[in-house]
Amino acid sequence: MRRLRMIVEYDGTDYCGWQRQEGVPTIQAEVEAALQRMTGERSGVCGAGRTDSGVHSLGQTAHFDTASAISPHNFYLGLNTELPRAISIRSVEDSLPAFDARRSATGKLYRYSIWNDVVRAGLRDRYAWHVREPLDVARMIAAAAHLVGRHDFSAFRATDCDRLTTVRTLHRVDVARTGELITIEVVGDAFLKNMVRIIAGTLAHVGDGRIDPATMPTIRDSRERTQAGATAAAKGLCLVRVEYPSALSILPA
Amino acid sequence: MRRLRMIVEYDGTDYCGWQRQEGVPTIQAEVEAALQRMTGERSGVCGAGRTDSGVHSLGQTAHFDTASAISPHNFYLGLNTELPRAISIRSVEDSLPAFDARRSATGKLYRYSIWNDVVRAGLRDRYAWHVREPLDVARMIAAAAHLVGRHDFSAFRATDCDRLTTVRTLHRVDVARTGELITIEVVGDAFLKNMVRIIAGTLAHVGDGRIDPATMPTIRDSRERTQAGATAAAKGLCLVRVEYPSALSILPA
Repeated sequence: MRRLRMIVEYDGTDYCGWQRQEGVPTIQAEVEAALQRMTGERSGVCGAGRTDSGVHSLGQTAHFDTASAISPHNFYLGLNTELPRAISIRSVEDSLPAFDARRSATGKLYRYSIWNDVVRAGLRDRYAWHVREPLDVARMIAAAAHLVGRHDFSAFRATDCDRLTTVRTLHRVDVARTGELITIEVVGDAFLKNMVRIIAGTLAHVGDGRIDPATMPTIRDSRERTQAGATAAAKGLCLVRVEYPSALSILPA
Repeated sequence: MRRLRMIVEYDGTDYCGWQRQEGVPTIQAEVEAALQRMTGERSGVCGAGRTDSGVHSLGQTAHFDTASAISPHNFYLGLNTELPRAISIRSVEDSLPAFDARRSATGKLYRYSIWNDVVRAGLRDRYAWHVREPLDVARMIAAAAHLVGRHDFSAFRATDCDRLTTVRTLHRVDVARTGELITIEVVGDAFLKNMVRIIAGTLAHVGDGRIDPATMPTIRDSRERTQAGATAAAKGLCLVRVEYPSALSILPA
C-alpha cells in the first residue's frame, strides 16, 4: 500500500458538504467513486476539513491509500476525467505514510465573501452572502483584532459542536473591501464547527452597527453562542489552503 | 407612457440566452414576467445585445415603457425581489423617450475568460472556457493587434449570421494572463453573431501554435469563416458594459 495526497477544488453549491452521507451527493463520495473507477479498489479518502453543505474549496487537502501502481500524474489526469465538472483535483503527489490530511494539518486559511449592496448580484450570488445593510469595514477590522490570538472560541461554535476542547489560535483575521465585495480571511490552527461563519456573521453585525467593536472581548470571553452574531450563509465560505509541517512534504528516498 | 432603462446582471448558465423563445427559460422572459407582476402590464423589454445561451452579463442594458407610476428606485427593489437569484437588476433610471437600448448603443465591452491549465477548475468552471494546451499570451497579443480598427469581420461571424453589413470597428482587443486565467477584453462599436467567441477561439489557436500571429491579416481579410479558429465556449463570455452617447443620459427638465 502507498499513500497519496491531493488538493481538491470544488463548487459546493450542489453538494451536501464534504463528508460522505447516505443518499445525498457529497464531495468525498464523488472523489471515492472516481478513485474506485480508476483502481477497482474501495479506498477511503480522508479530507482535512469537513466543509458544510454549500461551502466551496480551492485548497481542501485529502489523502488515500492504494495498492495500485498508477502514477500520481495519471491519478491527477484520470480523477479529473472521472469527476463531475464542479469538482477538480489540483494536484496529486506521493506522500509519507505518516501524512494524515486531517491530523497533520497545522493550519487553514478560509475566505468568507460578503456581497454588500442593496440588491444581490446575479452573476456572483453562488459565492457570496448578500448583506443589504451598509457595512463599515473600519469597525469590522477593529472588532476582528480581538479575535486574533489564543482564545476559548466557545461563543463562536455551533450549538451542536461536540469538540471537548474549544481553545483555538487565530493567526490573522483580515477584513477588506473591493467595491461591493467584502472579504474576511481567517488563518488559524484549527476551527470549531461553523466558527468562520459565526465570526463572519458577528463581524457583519459589527459592520451594520448592531454590535460595538469594543464589546468583542466580552462576547468572546462569554463563551456563550447567544452573545455572538448569526451564522453567515454557507455559500460565502471557501477553504483556500491547508498548511502542513514541511517535514511531511519530504518523500522517502 | 414613460420609458425606463436598466442594467441587468446574470449568470447565464441555466438560461437559453437573453431573447424570449417559446418553451425555454430566457433572461428577457424572466425580466418581462417580473415586470408584469409589478405593473400588471405586459411590457416588452428591449436589450442592447442578444447574448447567447450560457453567456453571462454584468452590464446588459435594456429599456421598457410603462404607464405605471412606480418610481425607478421601487422598480429596482421590486424587480430584484421578483427575479430568480441568477438575475439581478443593477440600476433602473428614467430615460429619454429617444433612448433605445439596442439602437442607441455606441459600443460594448465583452470579456472572454479562458482557464488555461491541464485540468479544469471545479470552482471556476461556470465562467471560463477550459483550454488544456499551454497558451502563449505574447503571441495572442500580437495577433489581437491585427483585429483592432475598422475591418470587414465576415471571417469572424457565425455561418448563420444574417447581417447585411459586416464592417465593424474594434477599439481594443486586450489579452492578459493572471496565473491560469487568461482574459480577452474586446471593445467595439457593434458585433456580428458569435464574433467575440470566434475571436477568442482564433486567439487560442494562435496561443497554442496552430496559427501564426503574422497570418492574422490574411485570415481577417479572407472574409471566410473557415479561415478563423473554432467558436470558443459560451460560458467564457460576459457582456461587461454597453456605451451610449452622453446626450441620451440627460433627462428632460
